[in-house]
Amino acid sequence: MKLYGYFRSSASFRVRIALALKEINYENIPVHLLNEGGEQYKADYTEINPQQLVPSLIDGEAVITQSLAIVEYLDAKYPGVMPLVPKDIWLAAKARQIAYAIACDIHPMNNLRVLQYLKGELKVDDEVKNTWYHHWVLTGFTAIEKMLGETCDQYCLGDQLSLADVCLIPQVYNAKRFNCDLTKFPRILAIYEHCMEHDAFIQAAPENQPDAG
Amino acid sequence: MKLYGYFRSSASFRVRIALALKEINYENIPVHLLNEGGEQYKADYTEINPQQLVPSLIDGEAVITQSLAIVEYLDAKYPGVMPLVPKDIWLAAKARQIAYAIACDIHPMNNLRVLQYLKGELKVDDEVKNTWYHHWVLTGFTAIEKMLGETCDQYCLGDQLSLADVCLIPQVYNAKRFNCDLTKFPRILAIYEHCMEHDAFIQAAPENQPDAG
Repeated sequence: MKLYGYFRSSASFRVRIALALKEINYENIPVHLLNEGGEQYKADYTEINPQQLVPSLIDGEAVITQSLAIVEYLDAKYPGVMPLVPKDIWLAAKARQIAYAIACDIHPMNNLRVLQYLKGELKVDDEVKNTWYHHWVLTGFTAIEKMLGETCDQYCLGDQLSLADVCLIPQVYNAKRFNCDLTKFPRILAIYEHCMEHDAFIQAAPENQPDAG
Repeated sequence: MKLYGYFRSSASFRVRIALALKEINYENIPVHLLNEGGEQYKADYTEINPQQLVPSLIDGEAVITQSLAIVEYLDAKYPGVMPLVPKDIWLAAKARQIAYAIACDIHPMNNLRVLQYLKGELKVDDEVKNTWYHHWVLTGFTAIEKMLGETCDQYCLGDQLSLADVCLIPQVYNAKRFNCDLTKFPRILAIYEHCMEHDAFIQAAPENQPDAG
């Protein structure tokens, strides 16, 4: 398998976590989102990923884009190694609703291309851009902290690692990089600290990628 | 089952399509997103949905939020009636990557609360807000039109209705409401026109909901 990604991309980080948890060897192909105006816009890469986003996974003939589609694909292909979507449909819904609360309601607003649009088209300054970033993280995390409720423990679903953690950890990592104050989210922080002691999460972390600058 | 939703919400529309396709009877409970500053912010509703977003599904003891988590849940619970996630894992990935290209990369930027933030906090005027809206629809649809490639026909995956159509149709409906020029997307438009002749899609359409104003 080949993974096109960028060390700092949260969506790439999700897929790297899943690949590491499932102990899959893969070739890591960096796509630098800033160099030369963004390598994701090059014609060759646009053929692979018409959205001009990372990550993209190549598995033989199959080309899969969208991080969560890739994670579900890996989970269905290798169900025996560290399953990420619980078999119980109600637990699966719990995992997915936390994953999507991040992937659909926090991350998209704070994606590089959106921050670039705010600065470029809307001409907002860095302070307004940072306020925007923090607003969506804090709104999202406030809800997720409640959603985790009493069921969370080491992981979002108690003692069972899932798709929810695969999304949560990169979002927390990113929020820390943007200096968000996360002290109001003790459940989220406890899960983050626990996961970041796990080999697969360490291996997948941005600073441990070959393209980390 | 009970569905908390709003007639114009694209995310609610997705779930209504899935419920109609699976021929599930449900009680429709309107949550008006604008009246009284937004009924989704009321304490009672926040207990159900900590994100203060629609839709939310109640199925006995289970409370499920996030439209795509609900659709996956319904599909797993009623696999025999109009399956929405293909059994083949590569086709499932194709369906999910189109669904997420909409649910993670178009819809979130154009959600009511984001448009409200642009107007309220960033003080942009209606023209700038509309340009923003159109930008994310056109960027997203340009990619999806390519992703549909030669495989699409009546539906995103050829002759097989899937999760991808459940997301695509509400996004097209919404884009039309905001007067986006969609003539450059013949594949998307053909799928839309075909689906909107289908009883389940008609039944689920915003104008056919009890709360349509």
